[in-house]
Amino acid sequence: MSRRRLLGTVGAAGATGLALGAAGGVGVYAAASGPDSGSGSSPALTTVGSTEAMFHGKHQAGITTPLQSRGHLIAFDLAPGAGRKEAAALLRRWSATAADLMAGRAPATDTGIARDAGPSSLTVTFGFGRTFFDRTGLTARRPAELDPLPPFSSDALDPKRSEGDLWVQIGADDALVAFHALRALQKDAGPAAKVRWQMNGFNRSPGATARPMTARNLMGQVDGTNNPKRTDPDFDRRIFVPSGGPQPWMAGGSYAVVRRIRMLLDDWEQLSLAKQEQVIGRRKSDGAPLTGGTETTPLDLDKFGPDGKLVIPDNAHARISAPEQNGGAAMLRRPFSFHDGIAPDGTPDAGLLFVCWQADPLKGFVPVQRKLDRGDALSPFLRHEASGLFAVPGGPAKGEYVGQRLLES
Amino acid sequence: MSRRRLLGTVGAAGATGLALGAAGGVGVYAAASGPDSGSGSSPALTTVGSTEAMFHGKHQAGITTPLQSRGHLIAFDLAPGAGRKEAAALLRRWSATAADLMAGRAPATDTGIARDAGPSSLTVTFGFGRTFFDRTGLTARRPAELDPLPPFSSDALDPKRSEGDLWVQIGADDALVAFHALRALQKDAGPAAKVRWQMNGFNRSPGATARPMTARNLMGQVDGTNNPKRTDPDFDRRIFVPSGGPQPWMAGGSYAVVRRIRMLLDDWEQLSLAKQEQVIGRRKSDGAPLTGGTETTPLDLDKFGPDGKLVIPDNAHARISAPEQNGGAAMLRRPFSFHDGIAPDGTPDAGLLFVCWQADPLKGFVPVQRKLDRGDALSPFLRHEASGLFAVPGGPAKGEYVGQRLLES
Repeated sequence: MSRRRLLGTVGAAGATGLALGAAGGVGVYAAASGPDSGSGSSPALTTVGSTEAMFHGKHQAGITTPLQSRGHLIAFDLAPGAGRKEAAALLRRWSATAADLMAGRAPATDTGIARDAGPSSLTVTFGFGRTFFDRTGLTARRPAELDPLPPFSSDALDPKRSEGDLWVQIGADDALVAFHALRALQKDAGPAAKVRWQMNGFNRSPGATARPMTARNLMGQVDGTNNPKRTDPDFDRRIFVPSGGPQPWMAGGSYAVVRRIRMLLDDWEQLSLAKQEQVIGRRKSDGAPLTGGTETTPLDLDKFGPDGKLVIPDNAHARISAPEQNGGAAMLRRPFSFHDGIAPDGTPDAGLLFVCWQADPLKGFVPVQRKLDRGDALSPFLRHEASGLFAVPGGPAKGEYVGQRLLES
Repeated sequence: MSRRRLLGTVGAAGATGLALGAAGGVGVYAAASGPDSGSGSSPALTTVGSTEAMFHGKHQAGITTPLQSRGHLIAFDLAPGAGRKEAAALLRRWSATAADLMAGRAPATDTGIARDAGPSSLTVTFGFGRTFFDRTGLTARRPAELDPLPPFSSDALDPKRSEGDLWVQIGADDALVAFHALRALQKDAGPAAKVRWQMNGFNRSPGATARPMTARNLMGQVDGTNNPKRTDPDFDRRIFVPSGGPQPWMAGGSYAVVRRIRMLLDDWEQLSLAKQEQVIGRRKSDGAPLTGGTETTPLDLDKFGPDGKLVIPDNAHARISAPEQNGGAAMLRRPFSFHDGIAPDGTPDAGLLFVCWQADPLKGFVPVQRKLDRGDALSPFLRHEASGLFAVPGGPAKGEYVGQRLLES
């Protein structure tokens, strides 16, 4: 009830453009950031805690939702003996819990960890791995898009931290809210599914920068400038599965490629600023192309410097990953950074929980990663340590659970 | 420069009690939370990014600073051959870096990871472990307060993650700002000191709750209600070392006890809400004593229920840890939660990075922990996995570095 009141207060504050004082020290921040931050829309004013993402809808939340400051990725394998029926019951439980938590309500059997806070932009996103379909007798409905990704030369994949029958992405702007959701969903799994792997990540806090900005990764690079924008005319076509395809249950869904990308920061930080910028092809300070302008200025890929060399080198990361160099391949990158302390070899166990979204991995992640794999100057500073590919069905209608169209039709 | 401008804007906003809109989507939140949240002072309005803690002063920052949403604890051992001279040079480098970063300035050789953000309440706090004094030829100046803590029955301490010559606590309200500081300080260490252990923690985000509240831990309990308040008449005497003692260089300093306390959450969450509240002695919903009232109502330790039993059981955590049950022993608890994923046994590797501050550990942590160790109903759900005890000298005057009074007098 106090949460509802809070939402009411905030709505009023947002409408008038005022807040604070009377609201009893309620925090206020600019909600727009992340993938959509370049769209120029004016940010809504609301509190960190009261911001609510919608569970029901055409698409699941957590795909175009602005980056959240805290994230958990968790994969489960169905328990031996559990099949389609148990999976359906689990997805029903999970959907009920996610709907409650995302609305700031306590689920029926609540751990009570995150009382006091509102939803804090919580999103819970569910996906199915390739192995899910055999285990549930649904092999005939396995999308071709879940065919294994090709190997890449920078792969050093740990199978124990890769793939999985089921995948859940949790994001929130409060660490306790995110942890609460993680525990609640693990509790829901009960004996039906066992945790296969789990990873934690983060992004900047709302309000840490003076205006909404594209994210920076742990190398210090502005990361995400060239992400497709929701206002792009072909955004939906590239990111979401259309209706009328061979797997009707995937309409409105998307495919997530998940990679734990270790950054070799001790090596990276040995490079001079100038050398780092040559590797990336953009300025570190503001993300502008080395050919000039601001962050959003297009790269001038044909510009030569006074030394007769390309200003953005042949192997610069920004050149190789540019959509115009990849036949228009596009994916929506929506990562979390990770930092799991110090690795046994003394180097930081840190980098990017890379999550990208596309209607077809063969037209998104795969061609871009193939090119990067061949000639990216950044590759020596990265190591892909885990990988997953998941079919994320469309969002549930009211009264539906996520995946119901697969599991009950 | 843009940071300075931002601070100016915010100062004006704070003074008038207004903000937003004109400030270009700048975030605004209530800064008061954590140890001082019970003091009743009205919170200052400021942005998450622009909030600045002071490096210079009577005490180091990070002791009475409100809890930050992100923290790193890191311990170093001096390299073989490094002594007092190298340690002094290192503390000088570290102090310069900390002063820059806490003011939102880039240090001379910057990794550039956290560009764009203001200081985000960054604090960097430096301490010396027992072993530091032998290695630097300063054994005669080792405070008696650094004598090893007694063993406790709930200890399962990993020496590799315990103690250390030098200890640094980093806190900030933005994860990238905290990580940037961690990397900068590691870089400063150079060949003089090697990382011994490093841990990451978090607290709630500013603005996640509708008003500043006492923290909740990962068990869901309100945690910190009984913390001493800065407004208490004996606060300084209990938390900070007075001048005129046997170690003049510790005047204005404090002793930090650091414990990695694993929470056995799978077991804890098996308990009913009623049973959890009996273990703690307080209501989970709002932290009020089981004897009634609100969070700040004193415990009624002599109240019996209709069943003839004590309402707050004999072994309830709140009873045993209550200052009035410990001869007034007081420490300022200022923890971070931690969550390092799934442990090899499948349970969550999560709990509390317990950090407490006191003028004398034998009058703060030790007597309370002794009592808890003997009869706390919470003990079966906790495991102390690492421990450190550090002498944290007073804050540096302008032109001074932290520890200069020890290392150069």
